[in-house]
Amino acid sequence: MNDILARRARLLGPNVPTFYDEPVHIVRGQGVWLWDAQGRRYLDCYNNVAHVGHGHPKVVEAICRQSAVLNTHTRYLHEGILDYAERLTARFGHGLSQVIMVCTGSEANDILLRMAQAVTGRTGFIATDNTYHGNTWAVSQLSSRRPPIGGHAPNIRRVPAPDSLDPPGGSLAAQPEAFAGNVARAIAELEAAGFGFAGFMFCPIFANEGLPGVAPGFLDATARVVRRAGGLLLADEVQPGFGRVGSHWWGHDRLGVVPDAVSLGKPMGNGHPVAAVVARPDVMAAFRNAFGYFNTFGGNPVSCAAASAVLDVIEEEGLIPRAAETGAYMLERLRALRHPLIHEARGAGLFFAVELVRDGQPAAAEAGATVEAMRRRGVLIGRIGRAQHILKLRPPMPFGRAEADLAVAALAESLAELPA
Amino acid sequence: MNDILARRARLLGPNVPTFYDEPVHIVRGQGVWLWDAQGRRYLDCYNNVAHVGHGHPKVVEAICRQSAVLNTHTRYLHEGILDYAERLTARFGHGLSQVIMVCTGSEANDILLRMAQAVTGRTGFIATDNTYHGNTWAVSQLSSRRPPIGGHAPNIRRVPAPDSLDPPGGSLAAQPEAFAGNVARAIAELEAAGFGFAGFMFCPIFANEGLPGVAPGFLDATARVVRRAGGLLLADEVQPGFGRVGSHWWGHDRLGVVPDAVSLGKPMGNGHPVAAVVARPDVMAAFRNAFGYFNTFGGNPVSCAAASAVLDVIEEEGLIPRAAETGAYMLERLRALRHPLIHEARGAGLFFAVELVRDGQPAAAEAGATVEAMRRRGVLIGRIGRAQHILKLRPPMPFGRAEADLAVAALAESLAELPA
Repeated sequence: MNDILARRARLLGPNVPTFYDEPVHIVRGQGVWLWDAQGRRYLDCYNNVAHVGHGHPKVVEAICRQSAVLNTHTRYLHEGILDYAERLTARFGHGLSQVIMVCTGSEANDILLRMAQAVTGRTGFIATDNTYHGNTWAVSQLSSRRPPIGGHAPNIRRVPAPDSLDPPGGSLAAQPEAFAGNVARAIAELEAAGFGFAGFMFCPIFANEGLPGVAPGFLDATARVVRRAGGLLLADEVQPGFGRVGSHWWGHDRLGVVPDAVSLGKPMGNGHPVAAVVARPDVMAAFRNAFGYFNTFGGNPVSCAAASAVLDVIEEEGLIPRAAETGAYMLERLRALRHPLIHEARGAGLFFAVELVRDGQPAAAEAGATVEAMRRRGVLIGRIGRAQHILKLRPPMPFGRAEADLAVAALAESLAELPA
Repeated sequence: MNDILARRARLLGPNVPTFYDEPVHIVRGQGVWLWDAQGRRYLDCYNNVAHVGHGHPKVVEAICRQSAVLNTHTRYLHEGILDYAERLTARFGHGLSQVIMVCTGSEANDILLRMAQAVTGRTGFIATDNTYHGNTWAVSQLSSRRPPIGGHAPNIRRVPAPDSLDPPGGSLAAQPEAFAGNVARAIAELEAAGFGFAGFMFCPIFANEGLPGVAPGFLDATARVVRRAGGLLLADEVQPGFGRVGSHWWGHDRLGVVPDAVSLGKPMGNGHPVAAVVARPDVMAAFRNAFGYFNTFGGNPVSCAAASAVLDVIEEEGLIPRAAETGAYMLERLRALRHPLIHEARGAGLFFAVELVRDGQPAAAEAGATVEAMRRRGVLIGRIGRAQHILKLRPPMPFGRAEADLAVAALAESLAELPA
């Protein structure tokens, strides 16, 4: 362990993020389980990338088969990208019918920004002040979590994120209108500063904001404000997409908001580096005609085979209704937990947040201790929230009731360990 | 064919680039050969991504094996990324000993810009005026080939590219000093404009500039100018890297210039989406400490297995000396071609440029016709240069003398077809 950490520091440099006080050294994965180098098994309640389960044989087989046949760029014609784009867009409404294939969610969000710029001719963007949309130079401007090198650019405005403890507007009831009011104010600032307003980027479940449990309709007033100003609604579906929310394929449909363009990432290829933008034809045309975009690896036959196999598995194994069913079961069990620090347990399909509060303040230290205690019990979770005081559970989609029982039991024990 | 083009337009939108007047529909690849849907075989003289050959069994096997075992992010510890980083950096000199793994060359170059910004605290960059360094918002600012949406930013300066027909300074002999003088002038402009000078990004073989045949030492004067101004030398090794140039692993070592940081991409995983930045520890630390960079897919065990297998094959099959040997043979044969339009045939290992000129002017139409004629003969090539008048041949590394003979014979016939 010390040896591998020393090698990391020597070969990768300082400040490379790891999970847990004592990082785990994972060597194998299958389904919802991970194993470390000592053979210890961990229940994976964190990884949404291994969406249909670690090492799913159907995805592995698709990658192997296509890798042996052909892996090349899309300047040649190939059915793989077209078959996939057809299947993918069939799962979208609202005229979202065209696709750009890329390799990472960051690349997808980087394109969303330029789509809005191409459509509007303007350069001002809005995001929440407690979010993360990726790691490129441009997209890191939208991320409050990892402030960009050189500071934030003046054409970006951050509005107060939805928050369960300290909601904009002062109450959960007033929050949707207050949020929209803040967006309107930011638009006016961008217009006054000469940037104009190009678009609002959001995660439809506000995952990085701490999954604050916003109800369908939350963005209705905001969407009206954005439309009135001629801006685009840019939905970052990297976390909620592909059925994670259980009730729908996409988070925006759960929320009841209609985006102009959508980014997809992490779960799309079950770990294979593939991501995409899905947009309306008018939005796509504005971008494609303004910029000769080409991505060397994007849409290659192997990436499309991996992504297509993920769609197969989601459907054949009924993973979306399963996420809804298991999610409801697990949320009920989380809500039944009795502990003085639990402010609220919330969920959206197979994505759960357990917010810890002490004396009205975010209980960040206790959340950290709980994550570590869970890891000692062999259950991998993370945390989110402005103060990192919200436990985050987001297991692979094959997660079932038995695993939910294990996770909730471990959480009860871990919380019981906390000092009173 | 018409059906597949119509599906592309419907599903991917307008202006999606294809090669050739009548695009090829490739369904299979092996070694240096590609097959279309009608079973016709093409000699691949273009694809540097399939570096060790299309569908190389060793790379395919590595991907299959690791995909079945584990594919997850680097917040857990894993030997794969460390073993690869150790092997990779062992092939670099100049203290370039630390690695960031990402998914695309564009992501790598996007990081290079921020490394220079983190080291210098400044934001001005210089590239040539006939280049392409990638497709993110930030990196597309450096690309003259695909002007960014909204126009070029004022913190970017483009200096006249090295050019075989119209060299900066008026002659090939005067070109290195003239190039450095233009860089010095651009630095002064960036400083006067208040951006300051952060770095100069270049491809060490100036591939997109048309492989203008610059000699070792070409950048010596420029490097002195850059160093004196406190800027970084950022080498884009996406095209020359991994032995393409035959004489060395990296283009900068062939040129005899010492970069502060390097980007790697296309050939790294033989088609699997993997790329990297390699930097000195001081440069890496400045970036890692200024920005909490994390890339979800970057450095996953499957990507590292693919990249590691590519290193294995390069070494086991002696592909770098082979590229030097075949490259010299093919260049000699290209230079022996007699045709009034051939201004010059140049090469660097297995990368060749045949520049076509008529009456002292770039013969772009003739170059286009030659690319199409080669395709009809079953040989896939491309073209580059400011006027797209330079034939570009850049085959997979297992290319041998027999294939060189085929390609040169097809080129002789194709050129002979051109109107006098």
